[in-house]
Amino acid sequence: MNRHPVSVPLAQVTVTDGFWGNYMQLARTKILPYQWQALNDRIPEAQPSHCIENFRIAAGLAEGEFYGFVFQDSDLAKWLEGVSYSLVSHPDEALEALVDEVVELLGKAQQPDGYLDTYFIIGNQEKRWTNLRDCHEMYCAGHMLEAAVAYYQATGKRALLEIMLRFVEHIATVFGPGEGQSKGYPGHEELELALVRLYHVTGDPRHLALAKHFLDVRGQQPLYFREEAKVNGPEWDSKILGLRYFQAAQPVREQQDAEGHAVRAMYLYCAMASVARETGDEELAAACRRLWASATQRRMYITGAVGSSVHGEAFTLDYDLPNDAVYGETCAAIGLAMFARRMLELSPRGEYGDVMERALYNGVLSGISLEGDRFFYVNPLEVVPEACEQDQRLNHVKPVRQKWFGCACCPPNLARVATSIGHYIYTWQQDTLFVNLYIASRCQVELGGVPVTVCVQGSYPWEGTIRVSLSCQGAAAGRIALRIPGWCRRWTLRRNGELLCPEVAEGYVYLDGLWHDGDAVELCLDMPVERVRSSVRVRENMGRQAITRGPLVYCLEEVDNGKDLHQILLPAQMEFSARWEQALLGGVMVVEAQGLRLAEEEHALYQAAAPLRQVPVPLRWVPYYAWNNRGVGEMMVWIHAQQ
Amino acid sequence: MNRHPVSVPLAQVTVTDGFWGNYMQLARTKILPYQWQALNDRIPEAQPSHCIENFRIAAGLAEGEFYGFVFQDSDLAKWLEGVSYSLVSHPDEALEALVDEVVELLGKAQQPDGYLDTYFIIGNQEKRWTNLRDCHEMYCAGHMLEAAVAYYQATGKRALLEIMLRFVEHIATVFGPGEGQSKGYPGHEELELALVRLYHVTGDPRHLALAKHFLDVRGQQPLYFREEAKVNGPEWDSKILGLRYFQAAQPVREQQDAEGHAVRAMYLYCAMASVARETGDEELAAACRRLWASATQRRMYITGAVGSSVHGEAFTLDYDLPNDAVYGETCAAIGLAMFARRMLELSPRGEYGDVMERALYNGVLSGISLEGDRFFYVNPLEVVPEACEQDQRLNHVKPVRQKWFGCACCPPNLARVATSIGHYIYTWQQDTLFVNLYIASRCQVELGGVPVTVCVQGSYPWEGTIRVSLSCQGAAAGRIALRIPGWCRRWTLRRNGELLCPEVAEGYVYLDGLWHDGDAVELCLDMPVERVRSSVRVRENMGRQAITRGPLVYCLEEVDNGKDLHQILLPAQMEFSARWEQALLGGVMVVEAQGLRLAEEEHALYQAAAPLRQVPVPLRWVPYYAWNNRGVGEMMVWIHAQQ
Repeated sequence: MNRHPVSVPLAQVTVTDGFWGNYMQLARTKILPYQWQALNDRIPEAQPSHCIENFRIAAGLAEGEFYGFVFQDSDLAKWLEGVSYSLVSHPDEALEALVDEVVELLGKAQQPDGYLDTYFIIGNQEKRWTNLRDCHEMYCAGHMLEAAVAYYQATGKRALLEIMLRFVEHIATVFGPGEGQSKGYPGHEELELALVRLYHVTGDPRHLALAKHFLDVRGQQPLYFREEAKVNGPEWDSKILGLRYFQAAQPVREQQDAEGHAVRAMYLYCAMASVARETGDEELAAACRRLWASATQRRMYITGAVGSSVHGEAFTLDYDLPNDAVYGETCAAIGLAMFARRMLELSPRGEYGDVMERALYNGVLSGISLEGDRFFYVNPLEVVPEACEQDQRLNHVKPVRQKWFGCACCPPNLARVATSIGHYIYTWQQDTLFVNLYIASRCQVELGGVPVTVCVQGSYPWEGTIRVSLSCQGAAAGRIALRIPGWCRRWTLRRNGELLCPEVAEGYVYLDGLWHDGDAVELCLDMPVERVRSSVRVRENMGRQAITRGPLVYCLEEVDNGKDLHQILLPAQMEFSARWEQALLGGVMVVEAQGLRLAEEEHALYQAAAPLRQVPVPLRWVPYYAWNNRGVGEMMVWIHAQQ
Repeated sequence: MNRHPVSVPLAQVTVTDGFWGNYMQLARTKILPYQWQALNDRIPEAQPSHCIENFRIAAGLAEGEFYGFVFQDSDLAKWLEGVSYSLVSHPDEALEALVDEVVELLGKAQQPDGYLDTYFIIGNQEKRWTNLRDCHEMYCAGHMLEAAVAYYQATGKRALLEIMLRFVEHIATVFGPGEGQSKGYPGHEELELALVRLYHVTGDPRHLALAKHFLDVRGQQPLYFREEAKVNGPEWDSKILGLRYFQAAQPVREQQDAEGHAVRAMYLYCAMASVARETGDEELAAACRRLWASATQRRMYITGAVGSSVHGEAFTLDYDLPNDAVYGETCAAIGLAMFARRMLELSPRGEYGDVMERALYNGVLSGISLEGDRFFYVNPLEVVPEACEQDQRLNHVKPVRQKWFGCACCPPNLARVATSIGHYIYTWQQDTLFVNLYIASRCQVELGGVPVTVCVQGSYPWEGTIRVSLSCQGAAAGRIALRIPGWCRRWTLRRNGELLCPEVAEGYVYLDGLWHDGDAVELCLDMPVERVRSSVRVRENMGRQAITRGPLVYCLEEVDNGKDLHQILLPAQMEFSARWEQALLGGVMVVEAQGLRLAEEEHALYQAAAPLRQVPVPLRWVPYYAWNNRGVGEMMVWIHAQQ
């Protein structure tokens, strides 16, 4: 019996939420079909992906050379994973048949010994496993393994799972703690977390052990990537990050800070949290909590974006959070949400839910347009389009979302997080159901051995009133734990109409007792407009404030507030109003207030610091996730404020 | 008779200034001797320069390969130029004999057709002039030509001048407007301004014409560097700057903004201003004024640093002046001072003197340590050492001055500007002597045909009282024009004790009439501590103020004010005091005041924006040029201030 909570599986959750339902639909009807066309090189104006063709060549069904990134296979894997989740909520025979065809192709491409990676199968067979640092073999394997698990869970079909079991068997032969086995580990972490997911469906301890092995050997002396470089050639050339880019400069249990490539880091921490949970490894759990604190308490943007620097798409140092030169890759925010979900499975603390919510509603969703057809790779908190175009320092920040990317990691990652959003809402531990996110949904679990359906309703993130109701046959004995978000300072709770005042324990209120059919809990989270500041340790945000409402971070856009947003000043006293605008940005709550705009008579570059003219101006904020859906323009989250 | 002013030559000016005298001495006793050792590979711990050895190989006196940058010759040229200026104020027979030996070596290295560039002489003869964009041939030629002119002016010796006249003759054969001549021009501008200097000593109109030709063909269609790339290979790879990096994307007369590599830009504008002056080309003069306005009114740091970006060491866009990610190369600030001096020769406007003074006293001198043995290449206005080390975005900013550089352009450039500082003080136009800088000095000129010695005395930049006295035989009819600095808002003027209130015309007051021996003018510039702000168009400086006193920009350093300088807040009302500290930093006026430090109880990364605790703290500013002479620490120019 596991001492830890577990996320309620997707199959037991039905999302009815309008807000997220829209993104699930975009994933199903736009992103995934578009990606299928891309994988098959059917998008006229785009560079070919060649992904399916690589598999056809590897399978002997076509002739040609490998084309694409060394991790091109992972694009197909992410598509398969996203489609699998989508099939859970929207069964689709034709789509499933298409997947089965792809699985057949994968089977044909697989080598007799179980190996499966088209880059190496096509003409590089002798180089298998010789460059773990750069060649993403285990990364691709991990994504395909996640897809196999997801497809099996969605459909019960084992074909892809069997293929990947053979591949894992092969990997477990080559790598491991045994004599004669390679002590290598993934250059881009991903396989580790996938192996734990595999373990969840197979129950085979060898799968968990291999995941743990990859964590255990990482960063041990002699450093594997350094040894590898002695054979392959140059050391990794990032003079600042070195092997910390790969989280591979020291053993994972000794790492103190979230470092290096942010997506890699998040996927590693996911695996660490899952392995710590499954093995009860308290040292590993402590490392997870330490890295969590580093990532989220000192190195995270208010939007849940992580990775401050374009150089290595990486973390930098504590409190270094430039708003304009940020990286904040969409995939890294997704990785943070995944890490948070796994931390919730280690221990039910509200802070994990807070960060998960922050990332999902802000830094993740900002990656996709409201139409579902344009994507940000980099998610800035302050944009001046001319500066992005003319200043190479900021040129990695695109002031408009792009149609697709050569390195197409973010769009399919968005698709898989949207289609699996149901997996993030609930965790369950014996007789307690934790509601972590207030995404309208139904969840089927057992409480005290009685099957119950828990139904969450509301208009989150726009309104703070949440209704949690139960249907069951007979009385169910158990607890329902509701997360009181960190952003919320006043709330009320009623159970069947009766006002309750339970204590908040680690971010949750716990409702005990017997539950009957029709029982309902109403949680009213006060959701005023808030002025937020950063710690004074954040250099870039001194004298600035951000506006939030509930889980949403807001921003000013040029289209509403004119150019030169940096000249806007928030007076000490302000009255904010939140107003629903049905026709705007797919329906959003806008925030309005009177502010000031600093003006000068003459634009002398330097002049005596006489007080500036402060012109009253109406200001209008929109949710950050929805910015840049109305053309090109400036945007700003952290606004100058009177001290 | 020229309609324009002319800078009073170095030979007629004796600098007696303590402040600048110190830097002249450092140049003479430290930088130039150290550089001579470097040029001869006699610095044990340093990478070899190989510069002298390259000339010995080219001269057939040694065997070996060329080593170093393609512009390695220019290091010797700058040394020769600096030494030449130094010989004017400090004749030194042994040093002069050493120079003569070097000149002899140059003569031996020179090819029969006059060509002189060791990179091409040693094994690349057939490639001469085939890659003007990248190979710096004309840049090296220009620096050696400046050295030749300087050495001739300092000593009257013609040997180096003759060598360079032969080289110029060769260049004028290869390049020019004639049929069959190459229409190329320098990839790194420098030769153009050197040719005008040559013209000043030879009076040969062909030298001026060649300078003008290089300006005229620059950026004309078909673009020379694009044609060259068709033969040589790849186009310049800076996708943002393109040929604007070289100021070569359009004809110079059509260029609207200061663009591209900042040092290149400054040297080009120097040549444009000089050619405009000599030829009366009003279109070219208008371009100079336009580019001046762009560089100094929209793209210059308060320190006179220019070039906001490490990418291409280049200008970016208007009002883009990041304080921490700045480039602000020392050589570019020197180039700006040179440009300003030439603008003063086009027309006597105080704004040119203001910028010249700003650059020289701040962004130039910050490049060198008070001991004269450490140098900044990049001159930041805000430094957090940990961030420079750990954040690749800021890694080009070194938090401490360096001993020398592989690309050793800045130290010798500092040496030549220090040794020639006398050249920046005065301009003369017929019967008017302009005093542009208040550097204590004596200047010998003619006023109304009568030889006079004008003596400037004072304790600038620490005190605003300046005494200008004359000695002459008989009465001299003429004007003395004194620059009223742009930073000065109150001043008084006395002539032989009598209070005068002349109007300020374009930044100068003009004192007419007859002058007699012993006549004295006393100018008292009120020099209070000032709080300065940027235009509201500068994003990075919103809500911030800088402290200045007279021509000096001040900064806070960690050693005086503790860590986390960004947490300091200047209250609306402050009382500043300036106090002389003889023992500090070689003697400086420090600025002191009570300020505030923002504090918080808890370092939660994001929290409700309740007012922060404001703890009164004593603050101490030191002159910016003198920062980083007391160990490693934070530094900040633009301080947060209450609005």
